[in-house]
Amino acid sequence: MTSYRYARRLGAVPPSFLGRLFAVSTDPSVISFAGGLPSPAVLDVDGIARAAADVFAESGAAALQYATTDGHRPLREFIADRYRRRVGLDVTADQVQIVNGSQQCLDLVAKCLVDPGDTVVVESPGYLGAIEAFSLYEPRLVSVPIDERGPDLGSLGRIVSGDRPKFFYAIPNSQNPSGLTYPDEARRAVADLLDGSDTLLFEDDAFGELFFDGRPREPLMRRLPGQSVLSGSFSKVLAPGMRCGWLVAPEPVLAGFNVAKQAADLHSNHLSQLVLMRWLETNDLDAQCRRVARFYEQNCRALIDALDDRCPGLDHTNPEGGMFLLARLPGGVSSLALFEEGLRHGVAVMPGRPFYLEGGDDVIRLNFSCVDPGAIDEGIARLAGALRLLGH
Amino acid sequence: MTSYRYARRLGAVPPSFLGRLFAVSTDPSVISFAGGLPSPAVLDVDGIARAAADVFAESGAAALQYATTDGHRPLREFIADRYRRRVGLDVTADQVQIVNGSQQCLDLVAKCLVDPGDTVVVESPGYLGAIEAFSLYEPRLVSVPIDERGPDLGSLGRIVSGDRPKFFYAIPNSQNPSGLTYPDEARRAVADLLDGSDTLLFEDDAFGELFFDGRPREPLMRRLPGQSVLSGSFSKVLAPGMRCGWLVAPEPVLAGFNVAKQAADLHSNHLSQLVLMRWLETNDLDAQCRRVARFYEQNCRALIDALDDRCPGLDHTNPEGGMFLLARLPGGVSSLALFEEGLRHGVAVMPGRPFYLEGGDDVIRLNFSCVDPGAIDEGIARLAGALRLLGH
Repeated sequence: MTSYRYARRLGAVPPSFLGRLFAVSTDPSVISFAGGLPSPAVLDVDGIARAAADVFAESGAAALQYATTDGHRPLREFIADRYRRRVGLDVTADQVQIVNGSQQCLDLVAKCLVDPGDTVVVESPGYLGAIEAFSLYEPRLVSVPIDERGPDLGSLGRIVSGDRPKFFYAIPNSQNPSGLTYPDEARRAVADLLDGSDTLLFEDDAFGELFFDGRPREPLMRRLPGQSVLSGSFSKVLAPGMRCGWLVAPEPVLAGFNVAKQAADLHSNHLSQLVLMRWLETNDLDAQCRRVARFYEQNCRALIDALDDRCPGLDHTNPEGGMFLLARLPGGVSSLALFEEGLRHGVAVMPGRPFYLEGGDDVIRLNFSCVDPGAIDEGIARLAGALRLLGH
Repeated sequence: MTSYRYARRLGAVPPSFLGRLFAVSTDPSVISFAGGLPSPAVLDVDGIARAAADVFAESGAAALQYATTDGHRPLREFIADRYRRRVGLDVTADQVQIVNGSQQCLDLVAKCLVDPGDTVVVESPGYLGAIEAFSLYEPRLVSVPIDERGPDLGSLGRIVSGDRPKFFYAIPNSQNPSGLTYPDEARRAVADLLDGSDTLLFEDDAFGELFFDGRPREPLMRRLPGQSVLSGSFSKVLAPGMRCGWLVAPEPVLAGFNVAKQAADLHSNHLSQLVLMRWLETNDLDAQCRRVARFYEQNCRALIDALDDRCPGLDHTNPEGGMFLLARLPGGVSSLALFEEGLRHGVAVMPGRPFYLEGGDDVIRLNFSCVDPGAIDEGIARLAGALRLLGH
């Protein structure tokens, strides 16, 4: 046997940039704005360790045993209750499915909804992990530009009425990669536009707990309760390595999702669910989120100050929260060229290309969550040096 | 919006029996042979708890952080090294991908290999979780009967040469549901039959550490190194709830698998990988496997003694290891009827239907890993009562 017969869908995945990025991230001489990790400084290791010890002492073998596909019931109740209290979303634990980080929602929602050739709408720029996950189900991917005012409604409206997309995937809060947040008017307008169509909204809220002002933004799901699914995660505020996220969905949609989840891996890590639940019972999640958001806010301000000071030719977004901003390169500079030149100067940035269905080489993504605060200014000084060498 | 437009593949999944089973498993008055859990008595809770405490103390925030898609390198090296030492399989860590329990291999292997309509061969009876997982990729599923001599080679040969299946999925060691183990001759014959065809062997070895005689059986992969993938798991010997399994594959196949894994959930639970690795460094896995196997062997003997004594009309397999046996019902008795009548007598068995692409109502699966040893004889006495009421 000389060759392997892969499924056609494997050929639909765009080439990944992550291997190259990972090689960069392990070089201590490089100041990296290219990654996407939470800061290790804000992870509550002692708190999680205590919670784990409690779980072993109290639950014993049950913590290590197989469990139900939908997830640990008290954790699902905590999540539903928090949505009710925090943003007035009327959901119950029966509408919550636990998954391995919200990335798994991207895979399973597409698996449940997308036949080859179906139209799926993503934001432009959009989350590259979503583009990869969706691509494996061979959709016809189309994108809608977003900016400070939200998504381009004319473009979205034409696609929804003309192409009947299966869903519109959006990150309305501090989007990865742009750092953009939909204003309240845009939330209303998108909900009005989709309402009554047969296009679902897939609302990814990975960053909604990380607004610098601490004010929760209203999920679009509140206006489209029967017509949207909403994913969330503990990865950005507690422990990404424990891979614990969730999907909130109308019960009929969740039933299909549960079938796909069971086929995918039976259930999510049960021990981790118990440990996180114990942490949530014995700690203050709001205080933890404020702590993380304050840390990222300071980093974001330092990054923007350094950019405005040292790279005045770079237009950039002004995030209200999250972990990323997007900068537009001065005319003619390629983000891939800047990536390579930056490495020679000891600084890493994320080229824009993977965030776009086409184009995108004129922007870079800068992460401010996982860079040493004391190294931000020096990193941007190096970036300015690289830009000068490229003619700016 | 009144209805949801699901992907066609959701309609391909056979109806699940698990909800009904789960309801049964929570009733303490029912003696259940229907489940598939490891015994809580053999889970090393204290050892895992110590390993977790060590990991938090030594690794700190790194244990909670995002990690690489392929998995924790020392764990991959441990797995490869164990295959080399234990069964002479010449593999390296580069050929090992960590997943969320070996169930995830079923999903991701099918995702990488199966286009709708492709032929996939399963055993008859076969593992129902595999039938479910594969079905979502809309293959043409065909089955090959297995018995004490292994798979029906004539049938397998005709399918391989006639239909060019993408892969043959087999559990050669103490199969779920039958408890059957391929004899050595069958291993050679299946490898010879597939060798040089373009059909991959997908060898699922969930139970190979649980042979009662402690003798490792040779993986078929040893004879088909470039033409097979092999899945394994810590779920049956250490901690199912931690969802840690792996796939061993030729590097080109693993590259595609890695893309699918990253799209599915970025990586498996990092904390759990570190905790398991720590346990493996500080404990004796061989001793743990012997302990589990001895416990299951005693249960299996008690179950067979009770069956032969109280239900002489039931033909059954004689497992060399694992957690299950299969019993053939006397003429005319339906396994679904026996399931319902059994419940009225306070005993639960697993009907055979879900393990077959068609038929199968004339067999039941009996689990002997997760039943109280002292309750086995009483459980089978109740089953005999139910059989009598059904005319036997």
